[in-house]
Amino acid sequence: MIQLAVFSLLLLHCTHVCSFNLDELKNYIDSHQEDYVLTLRDWVAVESDSSDALKRDELMRMMKITENKFNDMKGHTNRFDIGNQELPNGQIIPLPVVVTASFGNDSNKATVCIYGHVDVQPARMEDGWDTEPYNLTEINGNLYGRGASDNKAPVLAWIHAVEAYQALDMDLPVNVKFIIEGMEETGSNGLDELISKQKDDFFSDVDYIIISDCGWLSRKPALTYGTRGNCYFFAEVEGPKQDLHSGVYGGSVFEPMIDLIGLLDTLIDSSGHILIPGINEAVAELTEEERKLYEAIEFDVENFKNKIGTNGLMYDTKEEILSHRWRYPSLSIHGIEGAFSASGSKTVIPAKVTAKFSIRQVPDMDPPTVEKQVTTYLNDMFAKRNTPNKLKVTMIIGAKPWLADVSDPLYVAGRRAVQKVFGVEPDLIREGGTIPVARTFQDVTGKSIIMLPIGGFDDGLHSQNEKMSRYNYIEGTKLFAAYLHEVSQINKS
Amino acid sequence: MIQLAVFSLLLLHCTHVCSFNLDELKNYIDSHQEDYVLTLRDWVAVESDSSDALKRDELMRMMKITENKFNDMKGHTNRFDIGNQELPNGQIIPLPVVVTASFGNDSNKATVCIYGHVDVQPARMEDGWDTEPYNLTEINGNLYGRGASDNKAPVLAWIHAVEAYQALDMDLPVNVKFIIEGMEETGSNGLDELISKQKDDFFSDVDYIIISDCGWLSRKPALTYGTRGNCYFFAEVEGPKQDLHSGVYGGSVFEPMIDLIGLLDTLIDSSGHILIPGINEAVAELTEEERKLYEAIEFDVENFKNKIGTNGLMYDTKEEILSHRWRYPSLSIHGIEGAFSASGSKTVIPAKVTAKFSIRQVPDMDPPTVEKQVTTYLNDMFAKRNTPNKLKVTMIIGAKPWLADVSDPLYVAGRRAVQKVFGVEPDLIREGGTIPVARTFQDVTGKSIIMLPIGGFDDGLHSQNEKMSRYNYIEGTKLFAAYLHEVSQINKS
Repeated sequence: MIQLAVFSLLLLHCTHVCSFNLDELKNYIDSHQEDYVLTLRDWVAVESDSSDALKRDELMRMMKITENKFNDMKGHTNRFDIGNQELPNGQIIPLPVVVTASFGNDSNKATVCIYGHVDVQPARMEDGWDTEPYNLTEINGNLYGRGASDNKAPVLAWIHAVEAYQALDMDLPVNVKFIIEGMEETGSNGLDELISKQKDDFFSDVDYIIISDCGWLSRKPALTYGTRGNCYFFAEVEGPKQDLHSGVYGGSVFEPMIDLIGLLDTLIDSSGHILIPGINEAVAELTEEERKLYEAIEFDVENFKNKIGTNGLMYDTKEEILSHRWRYPSLSIHGIEGAFSASGSKTVIPAKVTAKFSIRQVPDMDPPTVEKQVTTYLNDMFAKRNTPNKLKVTMIIGAKPWLADVSDPLYVAGRRAVQKVFGVEPDLIREGGTIPVARTFQDVTGKSIIMLPIGGFDDGLHSQNEKMSRYNYIEGTKLFAAYLHEVSQINKS
Repeated sequence: MIQLAVFSLLLLHCTHVCSFNLDELKNYIDSHQEDYVLTLRDWVAVESDSSDALKRDELMRMMKITENKFNDMKGHTNRFDIGNQELPNGQIIPLPVVVTASFGNDSNKATVCIYGHVDVQPARMEDGWDTEPYNLTEINGNLYGRGASDNKAPVLAWIHAVEAYQALDMDLPVNVKFIIEGMEETGSNGLDELISKQKDDFFSDVDYIIISDCGWLSRKPALTYGTRGNCYFFAEVEGPKQDLHSGVYGGSVFEPMIDLIGLLDTLIDSSGHILIPGINEAVAELTEEERKLYEAIEFDVENFKNKIGTNGLMYDTKEEILSHRWRYPSLSIHGIEGAFSASGSKTVIPAKVTAKFSIRQVPDMDPPTVEKQVTTYLNDMFAKRNTPNKLKVTMIIGAKPWLADVSDPLYVAGRRAVQKVFGVEPDLIREGGTIPVARTFQDVTGKSIIMLPIGGFDDGLHSQNEKMSRYNYIEGTKLFAAYLHEVSQINKS
């Protein structure tokens, strides 16, 4: 009897398409986690830094690796040329292709489109990493490496979720499409145009869009219903035709660095108030319903301070801190190119210095308006200095914010999937960072969008020692497998 | 008859010490200029950057090359250990030895001591050099390379001047001593103590001190009678324990970069007025005699503007421009370490940023007082910002200014030597840069000091494309040979 039963089970497994079984998927994912970590290691090893034109070949290679992966999975793949990029110095270089893949084409099923990116932020050992940033290193259950959490592991978790269904001969509950880009970290150049062009083609049968390019707020899983946009500026002050000796020339020339410092100091005051006219006025009022969402969130201010390693934050309460991270604009000064930035001392008057700063965008701010406000303001402030040096302000990224309705069925399905994998109710949160494409998907396709994060709250995105925990990577893969099923149930309940 | 005469001449040349003959020296120097350029190439190839702790081995090697050169010339050499250096991060590394050499020990002759340095400022191709900075490259009669003018060619010109006397069996008119250091570019660490210790030993028989670590003001040769000092500061603002993502954290944290920008903007206003209380008040009044010296100098303001490549200077007249370069303090902001300084964009909130700025010192400013003024002022300004971030202000260089009497016999001898080699009367100028050891020599030994420059007015010290022209290098060697004779005549006229 027992032998016969086992035989029947094997037969069933080998000759028929199995129906959904979450436990079986979970087991499969658990038993293949070493493979998943190895694949992540391979992907992290590619220095696909989209902000550095010198790394463009690596980025191209990353797109090819992604396409090959989909081909190995028998997906129907496509690569879209999205044109060229003009660097601030006028040089023209090619943008990386956008890779798409489709799994399943059953008109009786819903179709989800998963968006992700495989480019990364810059990373160098000398920035203060404890391990080589492009050599994935596991320490105490954490997988350290640039791009591990942002966004290579989440992309792979979706891929592995689909692979798990395939390996178990389990019918995919929905048709699954992927759209993977390589310019997210510098503002998704060229992607908006592609989405518009593909509205009635690639996106014609897409019902839902899923983005997993963010993180939880705490150790509790979360669903994300909004992101801030970003307007990133270069302010270049150009003076002498070459660097000068500060002893020989100091006192006789207008120093570009002093002009730039004076200019930057007019952007924001010490209490975080942005001084550019029009910015704060454009921010949507906080509603009572919204205030209640903030009150419900699990967030420990002291933990947050400890994690950052600071004694003081700009605000005292959970609600103020979260709302200023998510639904109010912020201005950050990232650094200055062209000045002396090495260790040691150098008595130089730098000839041309370029400040990099950005303003996070929230409803109802509008990037073209912000560009005009910032440019006009800085030119006015610069004129007051009466310097012979030249100022050039350029907005190199102008990404809109995005906001979803938390009562949308996609979010209901998300809460179910989280319950089935983690056994808890997720936090409903927003993201202070920018996923520029979310707003484009919303504007162009008009489809519902959900952000379904698996990154940890302490993953160190964009900073030293970025990591993805093995737990989040593997349980996240299970969450994605479960979510594909929950989405298929949306119109059936 | 003819054969006999040649024989006698040879005999005379070989068995007797010849007497001074400037034309013979000039001819010898002219005919050996290719060797001199090759030696300079070898010296420039050593990356003896004293500001970069990672280049310390190269600097050590440069000191050894210098010592070997003196030994090859049969000088009596010595190497002085001057102890260790503590880096801002607390690390302790050894300082390079100071090398001395003596040629001649005749108590009937005067003794000159030539000071020079063989360390250099930082240089990287990506700073905008047109040629490899450590590969001496001749273009249109100019020898491009880091340290070519500051100070390797002048040190070699002195060495070649002595070698010319030796090669011609010409008696050195004075005893010649050298003292060569390797930490000039970062403030001559350890040298002051060595000079004090050697006051009654190495310096006991020194009558005059000669420094050739500066340049002419125009195409006309010059003698230099003053230099500015330099107080170099690091202002470090430390906040979060690591860099943060500006999207995720922007708006909730006090950003160290914004605090630092605000702080730097309190140092100096847009018209070049230093705002730190006490600095301007300490400056000696301009006397009527001094004003006349400025009026006599050959200096073309338009040329100066063209050379810099600017439409406007801080001041309009020759006298104002030169006095603000030479006898008034100036403040320069060199750059910021720890912020994003590469090309491209990075959405980072840097965790720890260190500004580098310096204030050029003039009589009657005093570095310890300036250190206190700057530290107190910045701490007061920082306290007003009410930020939880930490400020640490460190003065890493505190070099005094130096001023000589232009009627001193050393200057009279200098004018004679310039007349004999160049056929013109030199400009009497000051130097906006710092040769920290000049003031120490003055204070410790009490001997007369002259600065006898051979560098060109457009050598680009400390900046991209530093060069020494072949003309200045070779004619400068002749000037030094002539000067040794003129100094020997000081008490004989």
